[in-house]
Amino acid sequence: MTPFALHATAGAARRGTLQLAHGPVETPAFMPVGTAATVKGLTPGDLRALGAQIILSNTYHLWLRPGRETLVALGGLHRFMAWDRNILTDSGGFQVFSLESRRKLDDDGVTFQSHLDGSTHRFTPENVVEFQEALGVDIAMMLDICVKLPASASEIEASVRRTTLWAQRGTAAWGRGATALFGIVQGGLDERLRERSARELVALDLPGYAIGGLSVGESREEMGRFTRFTAALLPAEKPRYLMGVGTVRDLVTGIDAGVDMFDCVYPTRSGRHGRAITRTGEYNIRGASYVRDERPVDPDCSCAVCATYTRAYLAHLFRSEEILGPRLLSYHNLAALAALMADARAAIAGGTWDAFRDGVLATAPAR
Amino acid sequence: MTPFALHATAGAARRGTLQLAHGPVETPAFMPVGTAATVKGLTPGDLRALGAQIILSNTYHLWLRPGRETLVALGGLHRFMAWDRNILTDSGGFQVFSLESRRKLDDDGVTFQSHLDGSTHRFTPENVVEFQEALGVDIAMMLDICVKLPASASEIEASVRRTTLWAQRGTAAWGRGATALFGIVQGGLDERLRERSARELVALDLPGYAIGGLSVGESREEMGRFTRFTAALLPAEKPRYLMGVGTVRDLVTGIDAGVDMFDCVYPTRSGRHGRAITRTGEYNIRGASYVRDERPVDPDCSCAVCATYTRAYLAHLFRSEEILGPRLLSYHNLAALAALMADARAAIAGGTWDAFRDGVLATAPAR
Repeated sequence: MTPFALHATAGAARRGTLQLAHGPVETPAFMPVGTAATVKGLTPGDLRALGAQIILSNTYHLWLRPGRETLVALGGLHRFMAWDRNILTDSGGFQVFSLESRRKLDDDGVTFQSHLDGSTHRFTPENVVEFQEALGVDIAMMLDICVKLPASASEIEASVRRTTLWAQRGTAAWGRGATALFGIVQGGLDERLRERSARELVALDLPGYAIGGLSVGESREEMGRFTRFTAALLPAEKPRYLMGVGTVRDLVTGIDAGVDMFDCVYPTRSGRHGRAITRTGEYNIRGASYVRDERPVDPDCSCAVCATYTRAYLAHLFRSEEILGPRLLSYHNLAALAALMADARAAIAGGTWDAFRDGVLATAPAR
Repeated sequence: MTPFALHATAGAARRGTLQLAHGPVETPAFMPVGTAATVKGLTPGDLRALGAQIILSNTYHLWLRPGRETLVALGGLHRFMAWDRNILTDSGGFQVFSLESRRKLDDDGVTFQSHLDGSTHRFTPENVVEFQEALGVDIAMMLDICVKLPASASEIEASVRRTTLWAQRGTAAWGRGATALFGIVQGGLDERLRERSARELVALDLPGYAIGGLSVGESREEMGRFTRFTAALLPAEKPRYLMGVGTVRDLVTGIDAGVDMFDCVYPTRSGRHGRAITRTGEYNIRGASYVRDERPVDPDCSCAVCATYTRAYLAHLFRSEEILGPRLLSYHNLAALAALMADARAAIAGGTWDAFRDGVLATAPAR
């Protein structure tokens, strides 16, 4: 069983440490996303420098390229990408279901066509767990069925039924070795279905649980409410992971709802497009006002990029379409969220969470 | 006067140290190219780590963007790009003359249209020197006229005449402060004109001299011959810079001809396109044979990329069009040339230059 130690709480908010095969993860934690075995533009050294203890990669993408045989031949995902801290792989379910016209679902699994070359592949609850274990990741996610919102009650009910069925089969296939396996709670915006999904998955006594099926089309208020509702259904002694969430406001709201882990492409995607993240706002570095701005990207940030470069230089890099721009701004954006999480951890541990939360939410961007 | 100390020679090959305003440059040296105030994909920290003591940037590009006022307001080019070692700026002449239909040349200077927005600009021998001094660079290049080969005798003669005229005016405008000013010898593939150009420029007693007008369409044999011919016309006590040259073979040939400094986009451009440089060959990392190749990019290289990543991982990055690929391969390629230069310096100093040269040339790629 994956040891998860809770050090302090503040209401539902929790400060803990998750011990995984490649070291500790201090929670609450934000996981940078490295979909194709690379956090876009950054090296493992960069990720280490900005404090990441765990990153996320993706079963669907790795399955297609470079593929299982190559990854196993090269000694697993950690060695392949030269990252010696923890890795969580998403199950690929979310990506496969996004293919829509190119996938066919049955009770036993899902058959889909590669977006790369049209070749046919099949995911089952068993082979997705086995794939992640073969890669040697620290946390594997169960194959689940994520429904885009709004959706009909019967559609959501069907996704909950299959998600449980698949979780039972995935758990049976799981080797219970160094790879921890997390279940994913579905249920849309239906409290009864959320309760059922959580109850059926908790019965499997997995090392951790994710809150899935949110950040998929619902309002911000609904997302916040169902995060809190679902987190409360999960065992206190196990880590909780809210999938696909990563703005400053959503992270603080999620922590306050009792979530321990988050991931989102938001900081790196924003960084590639010239959008700088700060706790009090987001801005496009290409803006005319930054051309001679001698300040760092965020004067309140202590990251290596903010310690070294001016907004004027980053504005120049983006205006000149220089690839150093995305690299530097992705680094800053990830460092900004890492610092937010570190401050949140300190606030929970130090008994100042309510004030910290209210302070961040008072000035955080609306989205 | 810029102090240039010669420590050892081997035939025409020289081992020296050039003392500039931002520290020493051990020669022979290869200068990474950072056209738009950035060596594509790499930070100043990377450049420092791979041993660069001087980089090259470009007057034409910086003049247009971000422009003189911005660069001066931000404290000059070093501060702008956060690079505290030396910078040489090319004069921009080569870029302007490449515009062809968009420029008009007269004895007094050249008027041209920006490739960015069509706006009209004018370079004169004086304002190009003044611009580079205003940026605070360590070596400024004179505005010259570089003729593409083949060219008529009268065209080359006209370029030599104007290059001298402009060098005289540029020298008169030069403030003789921390920015050293180099002249550029032209003369195509005409020994008489090369002699005349060198003689007229040497008379100006500048801190250093470049060999221009090569690597512009002539054969490899012609380039080697005229490099040697021109280098011998230049004062032994001053640094010699061969512009736009950077393959393994050309660097070793250039050093053997008595050249001290080189620059070329070749390592970074190759790196962005997946071409890996080694002393014994160049290969495209996208090749099928590298998909499961556990070796580093170059088993004989000790750079940080070769110490960390496999060919298989780089192949994956390029096949997935991940921006980490160009970053890592550009780093390796620059490190490969930096190591070549370090070895060349050691060989000249250690009395083993001939054997080193012959060994490299025996296995270096044909181009």
